Amino acid sequence: MGVVGVGTMGKRHAENIRHLIPEAQLIAVADADLARARQVAAELEIEHYYNTVEALIERKDIQAVAIVTPAKFHGVAIRACAHARKDVFCEKPLTLTVEEADEVLSLTAKAGVRLQPGHVRRYDPSHVRAKKRIEAGEIGDPVLFKSLGRDQSPPPVSYMASGVNGMFFQDSGVHEFDLGRWMMNDEIAELHAYGAVLVFPEAAQFNDIDTAVVNLKFSRGALGAVENYMQAVYGYDIRTEIVGSKGTIMLGYLQQTPELVLTASGARTDVVDHFLIRFADGYLDEMRDFVRTMLTDGEPKVDGFDGRQAVAAAAAAERSYREGRPVALQNPARPVKA
Amino acid sequence: MGVVGVGTMGKRHAENIRHLIPEAQLIAVADADLARARQVAAELEIEHYYNTVEALIERKDIQAVAIVTPAKFHGVAIRACAHARKDVFCEKPLTLTVEEADEVLSLTAKAGVRLQPGHVRRYDPSHVRAKKRIEAGEIGDPVLFKSLGRDQSPPPVSYMASGVNGMFFQDSGVHEFDLGRWMMNDEIAELHAYGAVLVFPEAAQFNDIDTAVVNLKFSRGALGAVENYMQAVYGYDIRTEIVGSKGTIMLGYLQQTPELVLTASGARTDVVDHFLIRFADGYLDEMRDFVRTMLTDGEPKVDGFDGRQAVAAAAAAERSYREGRPVALQNPARPVKA
Amino acid sequence: MGVVGVGTMGKRHAENIRHLIPEAQLIAVADADLARARQVAAELEIEHYYNTVEALIERKDIQAVAIVTPAKFHGVAIRACAHARKDVFCEKPLTLTVEEADEVLSLTAKAGVRLQPGHVRRYDPSHVRAKKRIEAGEIGDPVLFKSLGRDQSPPPVSYMASGVNGMFFQDSGVHEFDLGRWMMNDEIAELHAYGAVLVFPEAAQFNDIDTAVVNLKFSRGALGAVENYMQAVYGYDIRTEIVGSKGTIMLGYLQQTPELVLTASGARTDVVDHFLIRFADGYLDEMRDFVRTMLTDGEPKVDGFDGRQAVAAAAAAERSYREGRPVALQNPARPVKA
Amino acid sequence: MGVVGVGTMGKRHAENIRHLIPEAQLIAVADADLARARQVAAELEIEHYYNTVEALIERKDIQAVAIVTPAKFHGVAIRACAHARKDVFCEKPLTLTVEEADEVLSLTAKAGVRLQPGHVRRYDPSHVRAKKRIEAGEIGDPVLFKSLGRDQSPPPVSYMASGVNGMFFQDSGVHEFDLGRWMMNDEIAELHAYGAVLVFPEAAQFNDIDTAVVNLKFSRGALGAVENYMQAVYGYDIRTEIVGSKGTIMLGYLQQTPELVLTASGARTDVVDHFLIRFADGYLDEMRDFVRTMLTDGEPKVDGFDGRQAVAAAAAAERSYREGRPVALQNPARPVKA
Repeated sequence: MGVVGVGTMGKRHAENIRHLIPEAQLIAVADADLARARQVAAELEIEHYYNTVEALIERKDIQAVAIVTPAKFHGVAIRACAHARKDVFCEKPLTLTVEEADEVLSLTAKAGVRLQPGHVRRYDPSHVRAKKRIEAGEIGDPVLFKSLGRDQSPPPVSYMASGVNGMFFQDSGVHEFDLGRWMMNDEIAELHAYGAVLVFPEAAQFNDIDTAVVNLKFSRGALGAVENYMQAVYGYDIRTEIVGSKGTIMLGYLQQTPELVLTASGARTDVVDHFLIRFADGYLDEMRDFVRTMLTDGEPKVDGFDGRQAVAAAAAAERSYREGRPVALQNPARPVKA
Repeated sequence: MGVVGVGTMGKRHAENIRHLIPEAQLIAVADADLARARQVAAELEIEHYYNTVEALIERKDIQAVAIVTPAKFHGVAIRACAHARKDVFCEKPLTLTVEEADEVLSLTAKAGVRLQPGHVRRYDPSHVRAKKRIEAGEIGDPVLFKSLGRDQSPPPVSYMASGVNGMFFQDSGVHEFDLGRWMMNDEIAELHAYGAVLVFPEAAQFNDIDTAVVNLKFSRGALGAVENYMQAVYGYDIRTEIVGSKGTIMLGYLQQTPELVLTASGARTDVVDHFLIRFADGYLDEMRDFVRTMLTDGEPKVDGFDGRQAVAAAAAAERSYREGRPVALQNPARPVKA
Repeated sequence: MGVVGVGTMGKRHAENIRHLIPEAQLIAVADADLARARQVAAELEIEHYYNTVEALIERKDIQAVAIVTPAKFHGVAIRACAHARKDVFCEKPLTLTVEEADEVLSLTAKAGVRLQPGHVRRYDPSHVRAKKRIEAGEIGDPVLFKSLGRDQSPPPVSYMASGVNGMFFQDSGVHEFDLGRWMMNDEIAELHAYGAVLVFPEAAQFNDIDTAVVNLKFSRGALGAVENYMQAVYGYDIRTEIVGSKGTIMLGYLQQTPELVLTASGARTDVVDHFLIRFADGYLDEMRDFVRTMLTDGEPKVDGFDGRQAVAAAAAAERSYREGRPVALQNPARPVKA
Repeated sequence: MGVVGVGTMGKRHAENIRHLIPEAQLIAVADADLARARQVAAELEIEHYYNTVEALIERKDIQAVAIVTPAKFHGVAIRACAHARKDVFCEKPLTLTVEEADEVLSLTAKAGVRLQPGHVRRYDPSHVRAKKRIEAGEIGDPVLFKSLGRDQSPPPVSYMASGVNGMFFQDSGVHEFDLGRWMMNDEIAELHAYGAVLVFPEAAQFNDIDTAVVNLKFSRGALGAVENYMQAVYGYDIRTEIVGSKGTIMLGYLQQTPELVLTASGARTDVVDHFLIRFADGYLDEMRDFVRTMLTDGEPKVDGFDGRQAVAAAAAAERSYREGRPVALQNPARPVKA
């Protein structure tokens, strides 16, 4: 495998492949910043590094590529991989527009390469267990999907500058929208979004927002409500709840450790402060699963269509917020495998 | 004092006045069902009972009346009290329409009688503490208001039949809307609601719904998201969160008792199953406060205008749900006391 | 009723009788500090106050007395009440020695007056529910009793000076020992105690300790472990656990409120800081129960023998700590009512 | 490295070395059951397996050995390793008697080989953090050590039969005693134990117990209380608390997952059911640390003397329980490295 883009997230994927997934072999990394590529290659004790995806995929010994570049380069990198017949794992969001998502789906299908978007929450052990409980009927029919995602602090301004304008829904909300589709086993039919710049004024410079609430209506009638927030100073906070006709499942990992410290200044517990801590297991499991899928010549559990649908929901949320009205989604049928 | 309407809720108010608020004297109760009025009078060891509000307010020794009838009779009863110059405590919702709310506000103002709607959560100790924390700046500027209210089971069909069509937002959501106004110290400028009949098909008969999600936009720009649900089989579940620029406050009283029972079939905690348990202190404190306001000739902490605004928000939510579009609220200025 | 001793605890009992237990009538209070007695009488709007128990019990209209003096005066006051044929509620510990406990048991029995010690935890709703769960077999046979009691701060030095030397086991441990007897439905057969002065050096002046761990062996073979601690700066902390052959029940009321405050400095919950807050319901319920027992001419649910046994366990713990060895308890049979 | 004894625990150590600790190379495994050794070697894709420790340590390419046999064989295996100049990691308890512990300490010291006992809790992330908080002064001076260890179910009878009589304190309590020494940074000066057969009658056959409570007195005066219980049907339950003069730290990992499931039958959370789940990170971290210590020619963070002291405390607890009296510990000075 090769990894393209070795910033914080890409480096984690590279480390997981190198150290913790023995079935995979990490051959090379690439990064637009060649010094960073060299540094990561050295740390991971691998030989090859490049500064373009094209250079990396020229290698015959690379069968699959993990794309972890800024989102605006996902499309280009996926196209290059498809052309070179490499299977692709691509971090979320799959692309920044629905049109580009449709294009890469079509391209990879024609090239016969696999495409898995990095929807890590589908691999988080607690979400996996919740999904199983729902399928086992523990809460009856799911009727209401609630989810919130709060970052401890905004991304660096350089990160915001690296995207397109107004990508908060694509960057953050995309997790919640995918989770909703998966947990409810349904498509989002319509949504309504409010957004605002309330705590991070710099967001406005990038035509972006830092706070959003989105109401969802699913195709079979269930409802949903999603929140995204950019600057929860107290920690990285992810909570999901699926309400069913016979009960509810709440997920929350606020507390990082089983320690409770009580002093005269109060009772204090730790909270998780970063998604790489919260979803450490998820990131490892998703890459393991991708590797096994490749080795067994199977189909990804989360595929390009899932990536496309999450992008479409985020785009609809963006439009709803901009236009001040509910937006219905066009939900194409899932493409049939040839 | 007199209490008009002594079903479950009215009886609780009567008991609180009779036994736990020594400054007040319970003189009489009234109920359309005279047998029930007689029974409650006997239990509370008071002498007088009637089957109409008019009969009750003829008594000279009654200075204030608590109205706890079905909501559709609130307006009539308030008018009668205003005419008889009795101060009024009225259970929520103040009225079923904004027009009627405006009318009773105007009437009571002219008559010089006080009017306090039963927005009990403003008296719940945990909400009171949270409000103080916000005012003390503990979480910086409040930017996001989240609230959910779930009943364990739908009201009896007779209760639904006693209201007007489609009163879920007025009956349940009115709590959340008032809480939002209070906690955020702001008016709701616009909202968007989805509603559905998902778990209690009988609701459709009454043109009502059992599930709702409502997004809020406050006048100064903050956002909000509210959920109401009619049939959370596991218990009565109320959760409120106010997110601020420097932190967040979460309120939830899911666990009724400090007991954790662990057996081979799992870990189990108790949950509250009824609002009269969850808000026992709140109901007592609000009536105590009303009594003291009367005795000290003061102005109610929660007044008719607050009741009117909550009714208006619920009506807007109903319209948004019916018409499938965001609805802006006309927010009149708070009337100045003469 | 009359209340003798109206410091913090006695005043609470007097308030409960005066305001919240309509079946009882509070006639008079007494306190060695007459000014305090007068002040409390004024606050409670009752007419009569005295500076001795003797003066108070001369009143014919007083049928029962609550004794809430320093523990070393309990014996004298109980004797006076027995002589005057008044029923007695007496705060814990019943007496400071087993010998005196036996004497007052005998005296009150002969006089035909009732005697209920203030073992408040038997009336705490969560402990009551736990007891019922155990009796219902939810955790099988109880085999292990764990309990801890931690005060937020030591009592005032004046309070320590008002007792006899070394009364930590009698003042604090007595709650745990009684709870153990009640929850396990068994007598303590033997115990072993370690004690130390670790955080409040002033305790040594009074030949007292601030920290204790006590192991228990019950008559039918079950084990127990108790902890008492005088200065848990973070709050008033009471935890009880009963382990059975089929599960366990944990009780803890550490968190006073359902609020969770999350800021950049961490996650914070409130804790209870005083036993009058933690056991507010218990204190009210125990006095209500005492009043009803008197009015119905019944036998107290918690009686003098229970008080005696708790005093005996505390005395044994003291001896074990002093002598550095396990101490067996002589457990007399419960006296049969004539 | 080689691993001797590849039952459940030994296999886990072997897996960690093979897959997750790249700096170490797993050369061979040994087990008295040769078929099991062969099976594990096959699963781990390594070439060599043996049925005796002697055969394994003949290999020149093995520098260090992890001993994970039944405890009664620890002494023999350590001796063999010392003779063959292999560094040793040995599962707890180091030995079954203090005498044998002293002997292996002396032998390994003379042979110049390192010896690390498997006190896994010293590597559990939450305990590590708690230790750091204590050292940072967050809770002032530690004055009270509380700890409990409960297994979900008794070990197989074959396991009990493989030990010596009455090894509950050595097998389970040894964890708590070591934790107490480490957290309090002090030696245990005296202890008192009660033990009983209350839930697992088979324990009596092996002269063993299933329930124990142990009071501790530390050298510098602090107190402690430990509980061990063999059959907590609801799960594997480990709780530790260190109370200091300025606060307390509670550790507990009862809840395995962040899921809360609420249905009509109540609120339910998951609990951990096995120590290999609860301490998965700890087992990996301790072996990583051992490997690094070997590679850097350092001294183990937890050494033979620590193992010896835990064994001595367990032996004293056993004696206290058998003889019904407190037992003082002889605490030799930590041997100075030559």
